[in-house]
Amino acid sequence: MKATLIYGAGDVRVETVPDPKLHEPTDAVVRVLRSCICGSDLWPYGAKPAQAHGDRIGHEFLGVVEEVGAAVSGLEPGDVVVAPFVWADNTCDFCREGLQTSCRHGGLWGSTDVDGGQGEAVRVPQAQGTLVKLPVGEDSALLPSLLSLSDVFPTGHHCAVTAGVGPRTTVTVIGDGAVGLSAVLAARRLGAERIVLMGRHTERTDLGREFGATDVVAERGAEGVERIRELTGGDGTHTVLECVGTEPAIETALRVVRDGGTVSRVGVPQYPAPPMGFDVFLRNITLTGGVAPARAYIEELLPDILDGRIQPGRVFDRTVSLDEVPDGYRAMADRAALKVLIRP
Amino acid sequence: MKATLIYGAGDVRVETVPDPKLHEPTDAVVRVLRSCICGSDLWPYGAKPAQAHGDRIGHEFLGVVEEVGAAVSGLEPGDVVVAPFVWADNTCDFCREGLQTSCRHGGLWGSTDVDGGQGEAVRVPQAQGTLVKLPVGEDSALLPSLLSLSDVFPTGHHCAVTAGVGPRTTVTVIGDGAVGLSAVLAARRLGAERIVLMGRHTERTDLGREFGATDVVAERGAEGVERIRELTGGDGTHTVLECVGTEPAIETALRVVRDGGTVSRVGVPQYPAPPMGFDVFLRNITLTGGVAPARAYIEELLPDILDGRIQPGRVFDRTVSLDEVPDGYRAMADRAALKVLIRP
Repeated sequence: MKATLIYGAGDVRVETVPDPKLHEPTDAVVRVLRSCICGSDLWPYGAKPAQAHGDRIGHEFLGVVEEVGAAVSGLEPGDVVVAPFVWADNTCDFCREGLQTSCRHGGLWGSTDVDGGQGEAVRVPQAQGTLVKLPVGEDSALLPSLLSLSDVFPTGHHCAVTAGVGPRTTVTVIGDGAVGLSAVLAARRLGAERIVLMGRHTERTDLGREFGATDVVAERGAEGVERIRELTGGDGTHTVLECVGTEPAIETALRVVRDGGTVSRVGVPQYPAPPMGFDVFLRNITLTGGVAPARAYIEELLPDILDGRIQPGRVFDRTVSLDEVPDGYRAMADRAALKVLIRP
Repeated sequence: MKATLIYGAGDVRVETVPDPKLHEPTDAVVRVLRSCICGSDLWPYGAKPAQAHGDRIGHEFLGVVEEVGAAVSGLEPGDVVVAPFVWADNTCDFCREGLQTSCRHGGLWGSTDVDGGQGEAVRVPQAQGTLVKLPVGEDSALLPSLLSLSDVFPTGHHCAVTAGVGPRTTVTVIGDGAVGLSAVLAARRLGAERIVLMGRHTERTDLGREFGATDVVAERGAEGVERIRELTGGDGTHTVLECVGTEPAIETALRVVRDGGTVSRVGVPQYPAPPMGFDVFLRNITLTGGVAPARAYIEELLPDILDGRIQPGRVFDRTVSLDEVPDGYRAMADRAALKVLIRP
């Protein structure tokens, strides 16, 4: 079959790899209907040292079960399923607590001997715990929004949930990428009435407004902080959803949060230590969030997608074939595309 | 009257200052029955640059109301009262949310034109919001524990509350100072059954065991982390109460907390940025806490002291007169005393 491999910064190739097979009785093999490129894929795409062999890449996919191992129940060939971006047994103590990203028997797509999602098919470890069956056909118009359950939408949701977003909390969302926009949608879904989106790309912040943002702040740094303060009577917002991961983004987050408030971060941190010294201590600011246990949220978020109440798949603004995946990476890296859907 | 002034590192003097008077109708004047020295007073005592004039110091006191302004109701001369370590109106939005440390009309003892607590008397701004009446006489044996409501015990309590300590959470307390021991007592009071105290001073950790610590780890750094891991099946504890404030302490905290767990800090941070990069993000660790809004907790904690169920005042292991305050500072700085009570 064909799959995507990354050889280093700017060097993504689609090549022929061995077809996936069951290795363990807990495995399944899934034929991929839709995959996509994640903002976090752009970190290695931007900085990975060149190497002679390619590494499998991609951690978001939705597909059709082709084969299941003897120890897998509840799934059978032909089922349409979505996979969260970390596989997990969904039965260990961490999984039962809703922290499948720390599963005692879980792991990452694309790690050693594990397939990536940007290919024609995937061997799924811990299939029974990992995969969630979707009550739709292979040609459903909902596939993009259902694919978003793999990572981007639960990541925005995790950010909002851990921040404590609700009807009585004001919200700043930092970042108008696909995660930031998903965080806006999640915050609105959780009842937030005031959602300020910080972002500079009008076509993205326009979608943010449709997702529920009540205000957009295009300024950055000190000016951006000043604008948020103006919008909130000088206080900042109760919660800040940091969806970028850079040092300026976390600095801004800590400056626009209200005393006693919470910053949640889901942007992969590109900094070693957030600036949380004496001033932040005096203001009783909480920093929470982290890599989202998407698996924990899929059943909760699914009905709203099936009912059409939310359309998180609107973050996909370009679709490519598997052969065009390198173009998709370029488009996202150049910000010509917000988020690229892959149709193998 | 006499009061304590700090002129620089190692230079604390007791001198005659003007008697306090009512300045604002919201003021009261309180004659001090008991005050004390805080671990945080040791930071300026260790590092304050020398200066020609002395600054008032001390932020924990309990006393008798001598005079109240025209706008103060609910308090009258003769009332025994305790003051939290930040004065506040107790009516603004932050105060109503329980964050009196961010009161819109509050401030710090010993700041410009505001008395310190280590003296014979204190002018109390926002007296009606700040002071809490105590149903005891001037000679009550409970005074030390009641004085602890000013700062040290609510600080330990704030640490435990913001960390989410309860019957189902395991706890590590970092630091065997008065705040750390108070955090142990608070965690036990909130129902924690497993409390590991990290500290090296046997006479202090012995009191920690009496307060509720189930395990004591004397090792520090990597060895200390290893011991906590051994005690918890490799996982660390759900919550970590960081009661020191140094960089090694927060590093240890972040390494002994269980995935998905919470570190709360109440030690004044002596570092600009806690090490919360990629690894901590992957583990979904929350950092919370901050300067404790003692005022928010006094009514809740008071009954347990009046009933004798808890004796947080046991952290005081030395009593000095006002003239002996410089000796008290030396004893605490030398770790010859855990926490020094002042009887003016």
